Parts: sequence; structure tokens; C-alpha cells
Amino acid sequence: MPARETPSLLYLPELPAAGGEAVLSEDESHYVTRVCRLGPGAALEATDGAGRIAALELLGTAPRVTARVTGARTVARARESWVLCGAPEGQRGDWVVEKLAELGVARFVPVQARRAEWRGVRVDRWRKLAIAALRQSRRAHLLDVLAPVDLATALRILPEGASRWLAAQDGEVAPAPGGAGVQVGAVGPAEGWDDAERSAFADAGFQRLRLADARLRAETAAVAWAVWWSLGAP
Amino acid sequence: MPARETPSLLYLPELPAAGGEAVLSEDESHYVTRVCRLGPGAALEATDGAGRIAALELLGTAPRVTARVTGARTVARARESWVLCGAPEGQRGDWVVEKLAELGVARFVPVQARRAEWRGVRVDRWRKLAIAALRQSRRAHLLDVLAPVDLATALRILPEGASRWLAAQDGEVAPAPGGAGVQVGAVGPAEGWDDAERSAFADAGFQRLRLADARLRAETAAVAWAVWWSLGAP
Repeated sequence: MPARETPSLLYLPELPAAGGEAVLSEDESHYVTRVCRLGPGAALEATDGAGRIAALELLGTAPRVTARVTGARTVARARESWVLCGAPEGQRGDWVVEKLAELGVARFVPVQARRAEWRGVRVDRWRKLAIAALRQSRRAHLLDVLAPVDLATALRILPEGASRWLAAQDGEVAPAPGGAGVQVGAVGPAEGWDDAERSAFADAGFQRLRLADARLRAETAAVAWAVWWSLGAP
Repeated sequence: MPARETPSLLYLPELPAAGGEAVLSEDESHYVTRVCRLGPGAALEATDGAGRIAALELLGTAPRVTARVTGARTVARARESWVLCGAPEGQRGDWVVEKLAELGVARFVPVQARRAEWRGVRVDRWRKLAIAALRQSRRAHLLDVLAPVDLATALRILPEGASRWLAAQDGEVAPAPGGAGVQVGAVGPAEGWDDAERSAFADAGFQRLRLADARLRAETAAVAWAVWWSLGAP
């Protein structure tokens, strides 16, 4: 087991109730037996990615790991964030997903912009990256990754009452982060939003926010916005 | 030329004085003629990466681009940041360097920790990534990339009077960023700092700072710290 201070959480989307038994997936079994080198009797923790964290006792390891749920708690989410993201260059979407998941963003919405299209997106790959980040950061909530949508759709699905922020180099200096409820950050593609798209954001109540004193790449702006949001955690 | 709103800055470390002529490197020539498709008479901007930004008039393109400096200004740096960074997993150091350069960090100091060693570091590659980020973000100051050093050395070279922050999940919630002068952020390797290293940071005046409400990977913590610092820009 690597010299981490705390092992990663297991991800068990169908986490049984206390007293129940779970059969771990191949990936999770591998982690338990090969990486952590644990055997029967060992204590572990798992999440369902939807707010529950359970304590587990390892029962057996072959062919897959089986474990009993010895207790569980639910982690409430007092604040929530969504990121709307125009396409960055190349495969940089992969690390946007990984970093947003680590930072505890709730939903990633890739947006097809007029000047930049998401191409070759593999949502299944993104979900795997999000799960790995969930485990590593020991979070109780999994980043929800959407397939790319157009801007009108992205704006239509935003939760009522959410605070809305558009990253813009000429925007206002970012205020102190914070606040409960849902906060939505939008970051443009490398080529920028066009005038019609900017109007659509303004009409939808997005405030322009400056995250740095220079131009940021799309993927950097996405992560910077999530860090800004994350810094508001109590 | 891509539909960016403003082209990238050229990087000319030996930028002549106003009225002087410069011969661009092969890389910069390629960018001007192939990416921007500019010809004689076109206006461009360049930086020396040390605070000067110059306006250029393109004179000729073959075999390399030549240009005359028509004016120059110097950008002062009121605040400065350094990042001390334990080794992340795999090749993630590459994107730490790129993102810190975009965010305007002054110096990147990779630190050999007892539990994690930087391996296969190519400082020349990091410098290229830093230059690309400088150009793209149109900054006047190039990130200075050091080769890995031990912790004692890293602590010894810190500027007198710098504010010092150690990223730690159990640290204090990050205060509002800001302040002039030099601010130093230290982030641990994936395996964490050991007790002796933690003591060394404490003895050197580092305050423990919490950047998120969960465990962050080393590279994520480095970028999150730089975003926190960047948000303090006036």
C-alpha cells in the first residue's frame, strides 16, 4: 500500500444498507487486494457517489472481494456547483473532468460553441476519470458528466435560482466566494464565445467574472472557477 | 489565424531597444508566417519574459522573420509568487508547469521529498511549456523553472520577508488572497510530507492553508494555490 495517509474510498454505486453484503467490481477488488493488500477482517470505506459513505468489513477476496456494511452515514451537500465549458484544445477535456471531480463540482456540462466543437468525446472515459477522482479525494458525491449539448439546452437545464458566472478577462474582479445553493460557472472555448452567445449568457443572468490578470486557456479557466468556488467552502 | 480575439505574444528573450531590429527564432517565425499568416508591414507584440513588452513591425519573412521594434513598455510586478512542489504521480508535473505559467507564478521549485522523488524531469521541456503559456496568456514575465532541489535548499533560497503557505487538508480555511510582495505556496507529493519535513516547514514560518474541502492531488493543490494567489490580483 502506498504511504498515503488514508486509503482511497471504494466506489460502490449500489451500496447495501447496514448489515448487507456487497460484491466488489473487478476494479475495486483489484485495488483492495493488490494495491492495499488487505485480507478478511480488514476495515474499509466506500461511497455510492450519491452522498452515502459506509464502513465495510472485508469478508473474502476470491474471486472478487466481498464485504459487509457495518455502518453508514449520509453527507449533505450544502452548496453545489455546475461548470458549463466550451471545448478546450486537444484532449484537455480529460483533465478538466478529473480536476472538477477532485474539487467537488456536481455537474460538468460540455457546451458546443459556434466557434469550437467538442470532438471525439468519450463520456464513458470521463466517467471513469470522475470515479477515480472521487475515490482519491474521498468525496461522497460523484461528478455528473453530461455529453456535449448546445448552449440553449445548457441554459435551459440550469437550476432555478442558481448564481451564474461567466469567466471573462474583462469581467469584474472575483468577489469573495461563498454562498449556499447552486453556483454555475461558464468558461469559453479557446476561440471565445461569439456575440450572440455572450448575449445569451447575459440574458440568462450570468455575471462576468475575472479569475486572473491575464488570458487563461479554457481548461485553466474551468479549474480556476472551480477553485474559486471551492474556496468558499465553510 | 484562429479566431482568437488577440494573437499570442511573441517570445524574444533578447528584445532590442526601440528602433532596433530582431531576427525571430524558427518557432516564432513559424507562428508568424504559418499560424497568423502575416507578411511585411504587419504589427505584432513581443515580450522578453522579463517585464518588457514591445510593439514590432514585420519587415521580412525569409528565411526567418525580421521585425523592427517600434515601441516598448515595461510591466512592473507588484506581487510575485513561488510554488514549492513535491512530486505528483506520473508526468503530471508537465501540466503543473503549464498552468502555473498561465497563472503568472514567478518561480517553480520542484522539491525532492523523502517519500516521493521527481524522476525523469526534463527542465528543457518544462521551459518550453512555460514559454508557450507565456505567449498564450500574453504575460510579460516568464515562469522560472528550477531543477529539483532538496527541501533544505528550497527553504534556503526563499526571499526574505515572503509570506509562506503550506497546503494542508487540515489547515485553516484560506483567507482572502491578496497582499503585495512575494508569496510562497508549498504543496506536498502524493504520499505526503513526513513529520520531519512538516517540522521544517513550520520552523521556516509556513502557515497551514486549506484549499478545498477534500484531499487534492499534488498537481491540483499546486494549481489551486496559484489560483488562490491569482484571485488576489488588484
